[in-house]
Amino acid sequence: MSGVTVGVLTETAADERRVALDPSAVVRLVAAGRTVLVQSGAGKEASFADADYEASGATISTRRAVLTTSNVIAVVRALDEALIDDFHTNQLVIGLLEPLTHLASMQKLADRGITAVAFELLPRTLSRAQSMDALSSQSSAAGYRAAIVAAATFGRYLPMMITASGTATPAKVIVIGAGVAGLQAIATAKRLGAVVTGYDVRESSRGEVESLGATFLTPLVTTGSGAGGYARAMSVEEQRVQRAELAAALRSFDIIITTAKVPGKTPPMLVSKETLATLRSGSVCIDLGSSDRGGNIAGSVEGHTTTTSNGVTIVGAGELASDLPASASQMYGRNVVAAIASLIPQDRVTIDPSDDVHRGIVVCHDGELTNAVVRSAVGLRSLEASVVGLEVAAS
Amino acid sequence: MSGVTVGVLTETAADERRVALDPSAVVRLVAAGRTVLVQSGAGKEASFADADYEASGATISTRRAVLTTSNVIAVVRALDEALIDDFHTNQLVIGLLEPLTHLASMQKLADRGITAVAFELLPRTLSRAQSMDALSSQSSAAGYRAAIVAAATFGRYLPMMITASGTATPAKVIVIGAGVAGLQAIATAKRLGAVVTGYDVRESSRGEVESLGATFLTPLVTTGSGAGGYARAMSVEEQRVQRAELAAALRSFDIIITTAKVPGKTPPMLVSKETLATLRSGSVCIDLGSSDRGGNIAGSVEGHTTTTSNGVTIVGAGELASDLPASASQMYGRNVVAAIASLIPQDRVTIDPSDDVHRGIVVCHDGELTNAVVRSAVGLRSLEASVVGLEVAAS
Repeated sequence: MSGVTVGVLTETAADERRVALDPSAVVRLVAAGRTVLVQSGAGKEASFADADYEASGATISTRRAVLTTSNVIAVVRALDEALIDDFHTNQLVIGLLEPLTHLASMQKLADRGITAVAFELLPRTLSRAQSMDALSSQSSAAGYRAAIVAAATFGRYLPMMITASGTATPAKVIVIGAGVAGLQAIATAKRLGAVVTGYDVRESSRGEVESLGATFLTPLVTTGSGAGGYARAMSVEEQRVQRAELAAALRSFDIIITTAKVPGKTPPMLVSKETLATLRSGSVCIDLGSSDRGGNIAGSVEGHTTTTSNGVTIVGAGELASDLPASASQMYGRNVVAAIASLIPQDRVTIDPSDDVHRGIVVCHDGELTNAVVRSAVGLRSLEASVVGLEVAAS
Repeated sequence: MSGVTVGVLTETAADERRVALDPSAVVRLVAAGRTVLVQSGAGKEASFADADYEASGATISTRRAVLTTSNVIAVVRALDEALIDDFHTNQLVIGLLEPLTHLASMQKLADRGITAVAFELLPRTLSRAQSMDALSSQSSAAGYRAAIVAAATFGRYLPMMITASGTATPAKVIVIGAGVAGLQAIATAKRLGAVVTGYDVRESSRGEVESLGATFLTPLVTTGSGAGGYARAMSVEEQRVQRAELAAALRSFDIIITTAKVPGKTPPMLVSKETLATLRSGSVCIDLGSSDRGGNIAGSVEGHTTTTSNGVTIVGAGELASDLPASASQMYGRNVVAAIASLIPQDRVTIDPSDDVHRGIVVCHDGELTNAVVRSAVGLRSLEASVVGLEVAAS
């Protein structure tokens, strides 16, 4: 047999309900000749039973056995220190590892001879990378979920209702940031019958927003797209103008969904305390940018719902894909399967230093930090491609 | 001044977030020359501040003053005994009083000389009664909300999603009972992109279900419509056939919404424990028929969410309109205003015994139970119309 064993662990982050591989991903891996080990109960929160995994060709196992036996370990969320200690040399770990905010972990993985693969570092503008784009698949789930949570939190109908007992006007929704999450939130709020506006500093977003039937709020500051398709960071003056512009616009909306989350960066504050004070009682704000490093909305607390003194509800929703666990895990599993197929085409890890995808997602390999961005963040010079190539060939 | 004062109290039922009049209803009452007293904070849970009521022409008051001064007291939910003791003779109380399951309260109201008006007893098939149809307005809110809660509880996308990370099939939703709530649930689930089926023992529902783009599951048992537009109660054999039919059909659905709630009756059991055991892990059941007298789904607990051992989530959702408090209160307020306009056209309660609406909704007046259904339920003969007329004229 090929000997490549892929292992799946139960996620340990609080409130995380996803799992790195769903049963349909197991079917694909087994069809490609891999062996799959799944920790008993790993899919429970996403409604995948152990029996579903076994029926798909996986072996249900203990956490210890998964950690000991697997060549590849697939995870969803960033690794805690204790877990890194449980890995062993030459294992490959793949997930949303948040490398730029977990530099010490990345160094530790490198030092221990583990190959770490982080979806955040994927060059997202390459079309052949799309099947591995876990940030997109999870942002899509989060954006859909944002509109659903907004509807579930809002005390009024989203659609217009014309009844014998009177007419309800449709809810007014604004989505700030027209990336994958924002566009999915716009599409879902539109489905529900709300009147939807999209806002983005990238003027190029106009067409996408308008194609969903939403209004594009023309920004005073436009930045174009920065590296990797993200909006570039704005100057202090640009941020001031943007905040004033949003503050003036936002008071007429019932529901505000913010989506400005940039991996490894502190999220920009888009809705200030002063702006919140101008909103009507009953308004709902969903902060997809929320994290333990702050959020897009003043006072948002990641994972919690709070209400201001003037009756505005703020949902700290930085990990909302976790609340659509079955679909989010299914899409994520496809991303993991695609990345494994690229990095381990046969029986061993084969990193091609001329491949932009490999140069992006591989954080460390064979005892060394290899990704240029991560190396720069820890003060190392980039490796020359030829050197990386030699190292990789030796693996 | 006219002297008709309408009072609104804070609802006291656990988890009730609605209020009997919203600020827009106050505007209408004030325009008609009524004085409106609102207990301070009564609208808070529905996001209506005291200041909103004052701006609409109401006076904010204490609970005690509302009870003492008002000629009419508008409530949402059934009255508790302590509240009845606080009313005084010649007051009119209007609400969803659940008269047939609160017969002792109705007798007590009659004995104390209070006029009680219950929306449940409205003859719903009269078109001129529609503006007072609080069961419809609240069922509409509950039906919309049922689809939103289902989407928020389900771990998958409702719509089909075609992405670079794979395709998600749309959720399969069945709505049992195509009354106002069921049709609204169907419409909302369709909006969200689910594949929706409607089921009703009234074959006449087919057209309404199909006009919403849903499939009508043709029932083996058809009953036609019973009194008041409800499905008539079925025989034991018919119930057995229906349960077997549903059991066979339901296992292919992801989301089941049941809406069989008949005022004053124990709700029919539509989804048995055995049927629940055949559903897939991750399935969601929303029981709008749930009450403290049971529900439509085995194991549902009113106001609570439970999960079966095979991973099916059951939401006991008998009072779901309360979770759309602003819109539900707005519609309800219109119903209250319309009923007051009919019963108190000028300055005094004027009950017309030849008016089907008045004969329906007025439970007791001037010391006597007047509604025929309620009289029958407590073992009294119906009053002759002429006698009612005399009594009313004396008020």
